[in-house]
Amino acid sequence: MAKGTVAWKIIKNHLVSGKMEPGEEIAIKIDQTLTQDATGTMCYLEFEAMGVPEVKTELSVSYIDHNMLQTDFRNADDHKYLMSVAKKFGIWLSKPGNGICHQVHLERFAKPGKTLLGSDSHTPTAGGMGMLAIGAGGLDVAAAMAGEPFYLKMPKIVGVHLKGKMPEWVTAKDIILELLRRLTVKGGLGKIFEYFGEGVKELSVPERATITNMGAELGATTSIFPSDEITRAYLRAQGREEDWVELLPDPDAEYDEVIEINLSELEPLIAQPHSPDNVVPVREIEGIKVDQVVIGSCTNSSFVDLTRAAKLLEGRRVHPDVVFAVAPGSKQALELITQNGALLNFLKAGARILESACGPCIGMGFAPPTNGVSVRSFNRNFKGRAGTPDAKVYLASPETCVAAAIAGEIIDPRKLAEREGVKWIRVEMPEKFPYGDEAFIPPLPKEEREKVEIYRGPNIKPLPEFEPLPETIEGEVALIVEDNITTDHIMPAGAKILPLRSNIYAISEYVYHYVDPEFVPRMKKLKEKGKAGIIIGGENYGQGSSREHAALAPRFLGVRAVIAKSFARIHHANLVNFGVVPLEFKNKEDYDKFSLGDEIEIPNLIERLKKGEDILVINKTTGEEILCTYNLTPVQKEILIAGGRLNYIKNKHRKEVSA
Amino acid sequence: MAKGTVAWKIIKNHLVSGKMEPGEEIAIKIDQTLTQDATGTMCYLEFEAMGVPEVKTELSVSYIDHNMLQTDFRNADDHKYLMSVAKKFGIWLSKPGNGICHQVHLERFAKPGKTLLGSDSHTPTAGGMGMLAIGAGGLDVAAAMAGEPFYLKMPKIVGVHLKGKMPEWVTAKDIILELLRRLTVKGGLGKIFEYFGEGVKELSVPERATITNMGAELGATTSIFPSDEITRAYLRAQGREEDWVELLPDPDAEYDEVIEINLSELEPLIAQPHSPDNVVPVREIEGIKVDQVVIGSCTNSSFVDLTRAAKLLEGRRVHPDVVFAVAPGSKQALELITQNGALLNFLKAGARILESACGPCIGMGFAPPTNGVSVRSFNRNFKGRAGTPDAKVYLASPETCVAAAIAGEIIDPRKLAEREGVKWIRVEMPEKFPYGDEAFIPPLPKEEREKVEIYRGPNIKPLPEFEPLPETIEGEVALIVEDNITTDHIMPAGAKILPLRSNIYAISEYVYHYVDPEFVPRMKKLKEKGKAGIIIGGENYGQGSSREHAALAPRFLGVRAVIAKSFARIHHANLVNFGVVPLEFKNKEDYDKFSLGDEIEIPNLIERLKKGEDILVINKTTGEEILCTYNLTPVQKEILIAGGRLNYIKNKHRKEVSA
Repeated sequence: MAKGTVAWKIIKNHLVSGKMEPGEEIAIKIDQTLTQDATGTMCYLEFEAMGVPEVKTELSVSYIDHNMLQTDFRNADDHKYLMSVAKKFGIWLSKPGNGICHQVHLERFAKPGKTLLGSDSHTPTAGGMGMLAIGAGGLDVAAAMAGEPFYLKMPKIVGVHLKGKMPEWVTAKDIILELLRRLTVKGGLGKIFEYFGEGVKELSVPERATITNMGAELGATTSIFPSDEITRAYLRAQGREEDWVELLPDPDAEYDEVIEINLSELEPLIAQPHSPDNVVPVREIEGIKVDQVVIGSCTNSSFVDLTRAAKLLEGRRVHPDVVFAVAPGSKQALELITQNGALLNFLKAGARILESACGPCIGMGFAPPTNGVSVRSFNRNFKGRAGTPDAKVYLASPETCVAAAIAGEIIDPRKLAEREGVKWIRVEMPEKFPYGDEAFIPPLPKEEREKVEIYRGPNIKPLPEFEPLPETIEGEVALIVEDNITTDHIMPAGAKILPLRSNIYAISEYVYHYVDPEFVPRMKKLKEKGKAGIIIGGENYGQGSSREHAALAPRFLGVRAVIAKSFARIHHANLVNFGVVPLEFKNKEDYDKFSLGDEIEIPNLIERLKKGEDILVINKTTGEEILCTYNLTPVQKEILIAGGRLNYIKNKHRKEVSA
Repeated sequence: MAKGTVAWKIIKNHLVSGKMEPGEEIAIKIDQTLTQDATGTMCYLEFEAMGVPEVKTELSVSYIDHNMLQTDFRNADDHKYLMSVAKKFGIWLSKPGNGICHQVHLERFAKPGKTLLGSDSHTPTAGGMGMLAIGAGGLDVAAAMAGEPFYLKMPKIVGVHLKGKMPEWVTAKDIILELLRRLTVKGGLGKIFEYFGEGVKELSVPERATITNMGAELGATTSIFPSDEITRAYLRAQGREEDWVELLPDPDAEYDEVIEINLSELEPLIAQPHSPDNVVPVREIEGIKVDQVVIGSCTNSSFVDLTRAAKLLEGRRVHPDVVFAVAPGSKQALELITQNGALLNFLKAGARILESACGPCIGMGFAPPTNGVSVRSFNRNFKGRAGTPDAKVYLASPETCVAAAIAGEIIDPRKLAEREGVKWIRVEMPEKFPYGDEAFIPPLPKEEREKVEIYRGPNIKPLPEFEPLPETIEGEVALIVEDNITTDHIMPAGAKILPLRSNIYAISEYVYHYVDPEFVPRMKKLKEKGKAGIIIGGENYGQGSSREHAALAPRFLGVRAVIAKSFARIHHANLVNFGVVPLEFKNKEDYDKFSLGDEIEIPNLIERLKKGEDILVINKTTGEEILCTYNLTPVQKEILIAGGRLNYIKNKHRKEVSA
């Protein structure tokens, strides 16, 4: 069993309850929270519903980085809502244009040894700083702001031993792509990946953050690097050396598992459509014509990424048939590349400069043409996420992206460099970063908060109320889906749907929109009949983002249970938070015993949950009886029975008041 | 009658036919054309339909600057279409990110003494360079590319005498706002505004372009400045002094009319919602709280504008409640402000940096919040154009914009400068501009054009075919609208509708969408009944942009005549081009003799047009007979009778072939 590792020490220091044994429920104290606007509006509506007068964390930050196209009033109204909420409750606000939450948090707030809970699945980015940073649904983050601990199953701690030295043209992105290649998108379920070994010294803090960021694609709880002299130098350059503590694994540290990566053997890798684990060496797929290339997103848009990419472009032009864009990860990164000439290199090469925001990575703009090929330095390439259903999105390092932009086709950057006579450069970190607080609004002084009025645009709707769990669920199979269903499948993002995030009534019309447009009408018919919807899923159901809308909106439509082969962690927690029962097949072959429209009965549900018994699912159409299990802590059972976490909190409050 | 002025000389040099007397039809040779993507896809579909193998102009440029949000495949497909068309027909292509057509054209292609026809109403921007630059519908531009002359009524030439010296904090924008204040949005109909006098020397080429750009808001045919030593220095700095010719009014030049503006008496002005002529001194409306501020658009986003605005911001921060954005007009401007530190000033003040594109000015992003106040350096503030129907948009100089961004409310920039101790600066033009060709694709060599295949995405639909004019129009009043209806009212732009510009079938669903959502269903019912739709309009019907969709889409729906008190020039031409008869009330009071749904008959239409007789409009519901006139050249009558210009060209071609 793990012991003495960096992650282990942070958990130990923050343990509120539970035993630190893999699979056991633990509760940890949360020091910092972050939200972004796409999950944040719902999160703060929930926080408001909790009735707490101010945040109880050491630091909470509300970022605006997702919904920035503003094609109508809705995005701007959400921003105004978030700005007023931040003033009201003692929260830092990062205004639109300041950058992507994870990059900015790394620069400005992340602290080694602390815990961070964020309503975004890429929150582990701050793990690059030696912080225990976990993505969660908005309700969990709201609870953390209200001073509640965060509940999770103690993960296994997997040591990733980085050996050797990275060859030229191999980057941090290739390390995490190699892990994805080996482990797949469900290889990290229930695990923390902790990096150690001499290879760690090869990587700057932003490069470490690229790796911990895409740990999310492994399905990991989080990923973390030690806090060492490199971390210290980074914090010093950020003007906050006082935030540094050394945090190394003990000499006798033990991991639950160890994986070795020999950096010397790595080569440039690329993830093919439509999954981040569909990884091959770039050289194997050279020659594919490219329509567009973009560098950006929370995984690869740091000062280091942009500077090196710009150097490779210097004196060159983007291929005439390619549209090439750069979206700097933060205002600080943009300031630095403005000063060091990298921005000029991009401009002179013919690049489009997009806003410092999530942008194309969340389908907010820069959609590829029909059937188009797009090479991106991003972290996800799920089908349709880019905004064009038949586009083919590849994920690679910024260097591989630039090579494709110059050549007009996918090409190994080493080959392009040789052909063009470009030398690999090592980017030195600046001695001093620009401070970068320009677009922050710090928390208001306490005495000024009372008079703040919370602004609510017409698209910001209150949360619907949900009923408690019935003793018996009567329903129908409303959908059957395959393995690795993502939250993008369940609750799509993109320019059309993302602006509806503050309005459950409107956004629920788009649940499973691209998978089965009949799903919502079907659910409405079931609701009229007074019946619940049951979803049948495969392995790793709900992978991807932390968006709780993927649980909340189906619940609103009437989904009361999902029966799957296995669940992704955050989505599992979100289902529980909104009162949807997540059941797992005892025998995975039983997946085949369901057809669309089958009548289902799940009897004595509350009784069996309370007793810890398996759950009986009766397929009344076929007459078959299927046994299901579940992965629920005692508290989660109570939440489910209450009909969701908000009900649970309200009930608790009611009992306290009447006591 | 005008003689010897700059505009007069250019027209004389380009005269193909007609007499240069105000109101007479003339035809002029077109040297250059420009298109942008929102009007360009239709324009090139029309050019393709003409069957001409290559453009016959000296220079034709296809810009991509409007539809750049790319929320799905449609924008990107349009870009690919435009890129392939440019290759096929010998056209320069300016890739997305290169900047706004008018700014870029000024920098790179505009030549004193030449003529430019552009499928955008702000084409007169190039008048700042001493070029005769006119906005027109796409079909007119397509015809010009095919070598046809441009037909127009000889405008009156109005001399604008700029006297005195501009006080500090007064800018070119305030000059044109003063003209709008005096003359209103219809004050320029049938006129060219030609600037002269000692005040001309006060203005750099980009500042002159700010003024000629917004001449479009006066409804003017175009506006022009002389080409002098300032023009020469600008062209020299752009590396193309050889394009310069001196072009001054003759010493005895005569204007049809002269207006005087004493620059010394000007002060900072602002246009209030919802019209560019609703102008007052800024000091009169100080104190209005502001939600957002943006500097950009083809009228005020040059190097000069941005540098001075950045200087005013230096060391200051944007007010916490204001979101402030900057959209540089061109890649060249962005390069310059990257080099001279202005970009850093913006960043450090907390600005968002939007793409070099039309963006918020055409409702593509950055929509204000509900009921929000937005102060913009733009040229149009029509209701709803910003994407938020109830937003209040103010138009002002970049300096007034920055003052509002700092203060959080509208404030006279002189007052803010005094309070903050900021000194006014004079921005010197650079000795040498960066060349700025990075994202251009020059015309392909002739021998390579043949193998180019034109790319058509699934949203790019062929043009519908239209029937010839019937002898008698039988129809109903389908809509009655007030004065100054804009093309934004008729055919809205914005993020939802603009991407449909290549698809008449889809975009026609949005005609008059925000004015009367029942208009389209009503037209569909009329079409089923085999009846035409008649629109009753007020003064200056169809002001604003050059979008021919505002004529083409109503025609597609079945509108066959618009009866108005008067028409804006470009829209009038577009109506004719698509076979919609533009009639004018002989007695303007007759406007009141129509009600929605009245049955209308317009008998013997072709006969009366041919004979030059007034047109009889019979209101069969009321029994009244109304006489209408029209403002049509002989060629325009033939076009109308043929059912539109494409039919007319095809008929001509058929006759030539059979002859």
